[in-house]
Amino acid sequence: MSKGLSVVKASGIREPFSESKVRRSIRRVRIPASLENQVVRHVREKLYDGIPTQEIYKHIREFLGSSSAPYSKSMYGLKQAIMQLGPSGFPFEKYIARVLEHHGFLTRTNVIAAGKCVQHEVDVVAEKDGGRFMIECKFHNRPGSRSDVKVALYVQARFEDLERGMQGKTDEQKFSQPWLVTNTKFTTEAIAYGECVGMWVVGWSHPESGDLQSLIESGRLHPVTCLTTLTEGEAKELLRNNIVMCKQILSEKDALQAMGFPKERRDMVEAEVNAICSQER
Amino acid sequence: MSKGLSVVKASGIREPFSESKVRRSIRRVRIPASLENQVVRHVREKLYDGIPTQEIYKHIREFLGSSSAPYSKSMYGLKQAIMQLGPSGFPFEKYIARVLEHHGFLTRTNVIAAGKCVQHEVDVVAEKDGGRFMIECKFHNRPGSRSDVKVALYVQARFEDLERGMQGKTDEQKFSQPWLVTNTKFTTEAIAYGECVGMWVVGWSHPESGDLQSLIESGRLHPVTCLTTLTEGEAKELLRNNIVMCKQILSEKDALQAMGFPKERRDMVEAEVNAICSQER
Repeated sequence: MSKGLSVVKASGIREPFSESKVRRSIRRVRIPASLENQVVRHVREKLYDGIPTQEIYKHIREFLGSSSAPYSKSMYGLKQAIMQLGPSGFPFEKYIARVLEHHGFLTRTNVIAAGKCVQHEVDVVAEKDGGRFMIECKFHNRPGSRSDVKVALYVQARFEDLERGMQGKTDEQKFSQPWLVTNTKFTTEAIAYGECVGMWVVGWSHPESGDLQSLIESGRLHPVTCLTTLTEGEAKELLRNNIVMCKQILSEKDALQAMGFPKERRDMVEAEVNAICSQER
Repeated sequence: MSKGLSVVKASGIREPFSESKVRRSIRRVRIPASLENQVVRHVREKLYDGIPTQEIYKHIREFLGSSSAPYSKSMYGLKQAIMQLGPSGFPFEKYIARVLEHHGFLTRTNVIAAGKCVQHEVDVVAEKDGGRFMIECKFHNRPGSRSDVKVALYVQARFEDLERGMQGKTDEQKFSQPWLVTNTKFTTEAIAYGECVGMWVVGWSHPESGDLQSLIESGRLHPVTCLTTLTEGEAKELLRNNIVMCKQILSEKDALQAMGFPKERRDMVEAEVNAICSQER
């Protein structure tokens, strides 16, 4: 039934429908194998030629929400949930800092550092094992947009200006490497340039090992915008209070209370957070 | 009458109304001194607190159009006319190449050059007196937007990547300096960074000597979008035919004819072009 049908991606590019891609995206969320076949069957029923991939995701999310594993829905829409950290790029920066903290980095956000020529605002400074990383977070609002080589170029120029400004300083004050972290894909050129100059370039589905999804999913570090038990307004309110990650709701217990959530609703939200953050499935 | 009134600039910034700024902007266009006082009087009549500078320009243009020196109107709206080269940045690149040619440079547009890491598209390559310049043209659509330090940073990183890619090549193949040319203003940081790394940064009212306006006005190199005898559609049609500069209409005589202009209208347009391009006033 799905033979020869094509889908239209957020970038506007058309490609043949791939059942295995749907299966892969569901497996990432670790839902039970039995459910996997049900999802595929559900998607097949909805397919038509030229269906936007966004619409397929919507159908899958709806299906998961009413399935026997309703919380898998919260985890399935990760890409969209990260985009909901916008419109400004600031919550994304804080979120990336939190993700890195859970991977053992010490982080600081919005650090002003003097280069040789001008001062630079570094989104995140992350330190681990003697390395000190200058991280530019590039947040895109629009699905389908890519971080292009110009972004990688200005990050490199900033790194070099900081390097030149640090001459004579101790190694601890210097940056060892520039990183570029984005919530979308990169152009081929941006990746090639990054590799060539030694920049660590992390985004959607890149690099093959250690892309943004795995950094998040391996540590169950989903953003609060994943939570289906919260309204969009409530999620924004949490972001304003610097609670960007589901896990923080468990460690900062009084946040929901301070926002006026009654006990019953707090229990609902915490149950969803527990379901997302529990490692076994 | 104009005491204490403020104007709102395209950037949204409010500042006190300055009669001398109006006079300066009129003098640039070299209209007769007698007309200058009339213009100032006309502006004073239209003033109110919080008037957008754009509205003042409109009043001045209208007044100049019906004055004894109607062609000064074509020259007065230079900033706006350059913006009308958009929405894409491509005609602006071609226009800048033409402006540089009139100043003695040999130019090529859209040159692909191999850097050490990736290939780069150089908007304009300009050569003169043994110098070979890599020019990035940054076109902004929106009045009031500024080219910021990120633009200057990526231009520098591109220049350095090209430099590293050129090792072992002869001097003639190397670029001697990066330039950044824009139709708007720069942020203070962009200018500071450019000066520090040795980048030639040219834009609206920068640098003090040799800004974009003087490069254009000194050579009477106004874009075709200045012409009041053309409709917007006709100007666009000329741009599509690579006629970006008023002067080209005189040297490429059959362009208007090919576009179906009757003799009478061709004469009108050419009269306006002659008035703009004549050096004496």
